[in-house]
Parts: sequence; structure tokens; C-alpha cells
Amino acid sequence: MKAVILNCTLKPSPHPSNTEALAEHVLTELTAQGVQCELIRVVDHAIPTGVATYEGGGDEWSRIHKKLLEAEILVIASPTWLGHPSSIAQKVLERMDAMISEKTESGLPVAFNKVAGVVCTGNEDGAHHVISEIAGGLIDIGYTIPGQAWTYWNKGPGPGKSFLETDYRHGWSITTAKTAASVLVAVAIALKAAPIPKEAYHADA
Amino acid sequence: MKAVILNCTLKPSPHPSNTEALAEHVLTELTAQGVQCELIRVVDHAIPTGVATYEGGGDEWSRIHKKLLEAEILVIASPTWLGHPSSIAQKVLERMDAMISEKTESGLPVAFNKVAGVVCTGNEDGAHHVISEIAGGLIDIGYTIPGQAWTYWNKGPGPGKSFLETDYRHGWSITTAKTAASVLVAVAIALKAAPIPKEAYHADA
Amino acid sequence: MKAVILNCTLKPSPHPSNTEALAEHVLTELTAQGVQCELIRVVDHAIPTGVATYEGGGDEWSRIHKKLLEAEILVIASPTWLGHPSSIAQKVLERMDAMISEKTESGLPVAFNKVAGVVCTGNEDGAHHVISEIAGGLIDIGYTIPGQAWTYWNKGPGPGKSFLETDYRHGWSITTAKTAASVLVAVAIALKAAPIPKEAYHADA
Amino acid sequence: MKAVILNCTLKPSPHPSNTEALAEHVLTELTAQGVQCELIRVVDHAIPTGVATYEGGGDEWSRIHKKLLEAEILVIASPTWLGHPSSIAQKVLERMDAMISEKTESGLPVAFNKVAGVVCTGNEDGAHHVISEIAGGLIDIGYTIPGQAWTYWNKGPGPGKSFLETDYRHGWSITTAKTAASVLVAVAIALKAAPIPKEAYHADA
Repeated sequence: MKAVILNCTLKPSPHPSNTEALAEHVLTELTAQGVQCELIRVVDHAIPTGVATYEGGGDEWSRIHKKLLEAEILVIASPTWLGHPSSIAQKVLERMDAMISEKTESGLPVAFNKVAGVVCTGNEDGAHHVISEIAGGLIDIGYTIPGQAWTYWNKGPGPGKSFLETDYRHGWSITTAKTAASVLVAVAIALKAAPIPKEAYHADA
Repeated sequence: MKAVILNCTLKPSPHPSNTEALAEHVLTELTAQGVQCELIRVVDHAIPTGVATYEGGGDEWSRIHKKLLEAEILVIASPTWLGHPSSIAQKVLERMDAMISEKTESGLPVAFNKVAGVVCTGNEDGAHHVISEIAGGLIDIGYTIPGQAWTYWNKGPGPGKSFLETDYRHGWSITTAKTAASVLVAVAIALKAAPIPKEAYHADA
Repeated sequence: MKAVILNCTLKPSPHPSNTEALAEHVLTELTAQGVQCELIRVVDHAIPTGVATYEGGGDEWSRIHKKLLEAEILVIASPTWLGHPSSIAQKVLERMDAMISEKTESGLPVAFNKVAGVVCTGNEDGAHHVISEIAGGLIDIGYTIPGQAWTYWNKGPGPGKSFLETDYRHGWSITTAKTAASVLVAVAIALKAAPIPKEAYHADA
Repeated sequence: MKAVILNCTLKPSPHPSNTEALAEHVLTELTAQGVQCELIRVVDHAIPTGVATYEGGGDEWSRIHKKLLEAEILVIASPTWLGHPSSIAQKVLERMDAMISEKTESGLPVAFNKVAGVVCTGNEDGAHHVISEIAGGLIDIGYTIPGQAWTYWNKGPGPGKSFLETDYRHGWSITTAKTAASVLVAVAIALKAAPIPKEAYHADA
């Protein structure tokens, strides 16, 4: 089983990423459960905005798109800016918009029978909304979101320290990350054992 | 297999409900696939606001709560007011908040291994947000949301006719309702065949 | 100058309300600046769901509606449940929906030339989203929202203590409450000195 | 009086932009009322992601930032993707995040005494949410949002034609655009006549 974790931090490598630091706890648990994981820092790649799978020129999205098709599990990890998912997370969703129309050989949207979860960090409030926004987009695209397939860390109220600058309540976020990884694997296994059949999809004539 | 459909219209019976009219298309498809359905118009019942499963006095929520525990499938159907889920839909989520702490015999949150979907109507814009808000709440509670387990109808831009006042694009909403019902059944079957195991849940010490 | 503060806690009096405790800091500053304030705990009043100004029977909303028309300033104070505004806050917005069509003698929506702000508390993450949702609804209705006309308190990540159970970072929330009160008064004064003229409103033919 | 309109379409020039087509109706009315307007298609400029006013290298944001400081009025115009503001709109908000800490000579956040509005288009549902998200961010930054300072166009339910491909209900969107422009001007005038004073801002010690 394969998982792709898209780190949607605004900061290119080698800047430390708080979001990556928390996402790695999900990755560690996925790996412990036998999943082959790849973590991609999206901002390190040349990905123009757009809503097609290939936007021309040196567009590197199509390589990531191929990995998404091969993986049963997707995790989108985003910082919180102005209480919203990052512009990189939204750019990823926009590029994934094309997947709504892309179909498997049996005619299902390509994300059917795949599962997805969300990781969110921020030095201020906003995580539940970031999770809802990203999950909402992924559900539109066709991903199944297992219950509680998310974790987050922030530090309310008002501006304050980032995840890597303090140990404040890391325990809760890490425990929650383990549950997120576990339900992603469990529901991915269930959908492999008994997939959504092609008859489930009704296309508008 | 059982499904509960909670119609969160603001209008008590016997007022016609646009939301119910669209929800019935999901119900019809669920029934056609062998699911035993119950549609409840929440506003017809004496349900105080609160976050416990029983809020005392003549509180009728606990009867609905019992039905939720017995059903594998939940559909929340809501109108759109000011671009948001109705106050009744939010009251339902608040009452369901207690389910985050309620556990099965094996120690899982009671909503684990259950699936949920959303139906939304409105005479104006707002459906995707209503769906994200409700789905986000249900994911917190532990429900799994299958990809595209929703349908909606509205008529943008600006105020206009309601679902029952026009035939405008009903076809798309009904086709989408069939997909929603089908993926709910398919993922419920998958989770019955291969349930999320008790080891998946990690509680904060 | 008059202000109405609607406390949208789920808990009827005399239960202590965390939301009220923070809202009182806004009220204190408004009073210090000469504003005549009234704080109303909405759940203590018999207010049915609906979208008309009077829903019949013993509906007590119309009394509150009258106070809103007399006040230059409105503050909606809400707890956070499942990351959303409370069902009481949404019920208030739904009842205020009628104000979109209600016009002053000069033909402006009745909320034009009034200002509004938001107070939010929660034992978990969600404040910025609660503020955006409520502000978004109030802007639709016609209220002007001054920059930073809000304050909040919560304690992330994960569930934890409520506002009244700890002193953690109260200072930030109270300072922010003072700014919220001050900008509400300042913009209300500006709109009194130079009101939006009737020519500003263009009605759809 | 000056206005900046930021078109946050994903499509670089010379591609036609539906969002620009609707934003131009706001621009026309602003111009008719004597406001000097500049419309900027953000994606045409080299603007990296980030949260500082200058991110180094050939970053063109600082030129736009300077225009924002000189303008009394800001309009953010965004398409709807997955029901959300575009990634370009979110990138703009992230770059504007620095303005929360930037102060005028008298010590107020630089966006105090400025007003902002929102324009949204989409071939599918989502406008009210896009408006709330963008308005919420702008309020955090310090902009005042006049009541009904927005317009939108979309065509629900389901995917369909874009603004420039049909005349369906353009009238409502254009009338609403005129109100948006008019209230922006009116509240900008009010804040010029009676500005928020420096005493209004209380900084966390």
C-alpha cells in the first residue's frame, strides 16, 4: 500500500517546516503499519496555477499526479494563514480539480476507492476550518475521508510560538496523528477488500 | 442495513420542505438498494440545544440518538441560510458532539465504521460550503464520508425560486443524489466486511 | 449611542457563560466610551426558528429586532461547537435575514449605517472561522464590519479548559476586546457624521 | 480617492477572465463616482508565496503593496475553485498578512481607515463562502468591510457555463456591483471625514 503526503508549507527547502514536523508523525505511523510513504514539499517543485493535469512547459505537477494515482492514501498537510489553508494547498486542490473528470478503466472517478486525511499546524487558531476546507475539496474530487483522519497543532489565542518552538501539547497532536494514520490504513484496506463498484457512479446525461 | 435521514429544514410539518423533496431522491435510491430508511424532520421534535445526549425533561433527542447508533448510514439534509447550514443542522451537530466521547464495547468512538452524506438545497448560493461544514463536523464525530456522498440544488446568482417552484436542472441534482446513495451503501458494505479495528484508535493519555 | 450584545451561548441563565465573560470586556469598554449597552442571552427568550421578523404566537424575537433597529452597534458573541458558530448564533442570523428586505424611510436596508463585531470563545480551535461566518452573514444583511472588530479566546490544540476555568492568555483577549469596542464606536461615529446616502443602494429591477 | 482592484484569476493575460469581466462593473461605477482605479491581474506578476512584504529577488509584490497603502479602497476579485477562493487570492492575503504588523505614523495598523470589498465568479456554487473567507481575512488585516460591499455571479447547480458564456442573470450581478461600489465610496468618505483615531488601537503588551 502506498501513501503520498503533500506538505503545503509556503517555505521552500531547506527551511524547517512546522507542518512537515507534524506530518512526519503521521508518516511514521503509516510506515510502521507497512505503508510505503513519500513526502513531497510542493513548493520545491515548479507547479504553475491551473486546473488541468498538465499546464505545459516545465510543469512538474503531472509527476505528482501520477504518484497520486498510484497511491491508495493521500495526506494533505497545510499551515494556517489568515485562518485558511495555505495558497499552496489551494493550488494543489485546483490542480486536482481535473481528477473529477478523469475516470478509471471501469468508469469511476480516479479518486474513488482512495482515502485522504489532513494535517494542519499554525501558531494561531484555524485548524478545524483548514481541515474542513481541504476535506470538502477532496470529497468533491472523490476521496473517502475516514472519521478523524486528521491531526493538528496550534496555540490559541492570538499569535504565538510555532510547533517547532515549543513542546506545548505535542502529545495530543501526536496521539491524534496515530489515530489518523490508523483509520486511513483501515479504510483503505476495507475499500481494497470491497471496492465501490462501477455501478455506484451515475453520470449526468 | 439501516439509514437515518435528518431533514434540518426550519419549517415544521406539514409545510412542504424543499430540502425533504431532494433528500427523498437519496432515500429512494437507498431503498432501491435494500436499505431500510427513516426520514426525520428534526424541527417537529422537542429538542433543546445542548451538547449532551440527554438534556432532561421531555428531550426527544435521545430517541434519535438511539436510531443513529443502530444505523450504518446517516444523511444530514439542510437548507442554506445566509450561506450556512441551518440552525437546526448545527443543533443536531451539537447534540451529536457527545458521540465523540461515547465508545463501542471495543473502545472505538461510536460513529467509527458508520458513513454519512449531505443533502443541501437553497434558493441562493452556498451548497458546497454547507456540505463542507456538515461533513467537517461529522468527520470530527467519527463518521467516514465517502467521496461525492452529497447532492445539492440551488439557483444562482441572487435570490430566486426554490427547488419545488421550478424544474431548473433537477436532473443533475437527482443523478448526483443517486451517486451519493450508492457510494454510501458501497462504503458501508466495505466497512462491514473489513471494519476499522479497535487498535486504530489512540486515546490521549 | 446604543449597542446590543447578543450572547449566543447554548446555556440558559443562570449557568455561567464563558462567552458572556469575554463579551463583558467589550461591553465594559463600550460603556466607558459612553455607549448605552444591553446584553441579551438569546437562549433565555422564546425564539422559534424562522426567517420572518415575527413568527407568531409568543415569539419574543420582534422585541430584540426592535432593539437592533434602535442600536447603532451590534455585537454577536458565540461559543465554538464543532468549529462552527453555535446553533443559537445561526438562529439569530436566520431571524435577521428578514432585515435584508426591510428598508429605512429613505429606502436603504435597515442595517446600512450600523456597525457590527464578533466575540468568540471555545475550549478548542475555531474562532477565526466563527468570526468569518458571523461577519459574512452580517455583511449580507447590511452591517459594516470595522477592521479588527472582534476578539476571541480558546485553547488549542485539542479539548481543554474553558475561559472561566483558567487565566491562560486572558490578557491578549481583553486587549483585543478593547480595540474591538473602540473601532466599533469610531466607525459608528463616522457613519453618523457622514452616512451612506440613499443613492448608494441599487435595487434589482 | 484611489481604488485598487486585484483580479485573482488563475489565468494569465491575454486569456479572457470571467472574474475581470464582473469586476469591471465595480470599476466602472467607482470611476463614475470620481475614484481613480487600477485593476491588476495578480498572476501576470512575479509574486512568490510568503508572508513578508518583500520576499527577495525579483518579487513584484512590494510594488502592489505600495499601491495598497496609497489607496483608500481595495477590491479583491476571485474565481471559485472547489468552492474556495483561488490560490492567487489566498497568496495575496498571505502577502498582506505582514500589514497586520505595519503601522501608520500615528501607530494604527496601515489598513485601518481603508475599506474593502469582494467580487466572485464561478461556473458553480460557492460565492458566499468565497466572499466570507476573503472578507474575514481582510477584517483581520484591518480593513473595514461596508455592508453588501460585494457582488457575485455563478450558475447553480452543478458545473455549467461561465459568466462570459451566457447572459443568465447578469442584471442582478451588475446591479449588485453598483451597490458594492457605492457603499465602498460612501464608507471611505465617512472614514476620511471622521477617521478611526489612534487611541482606538490597543496593543498587547
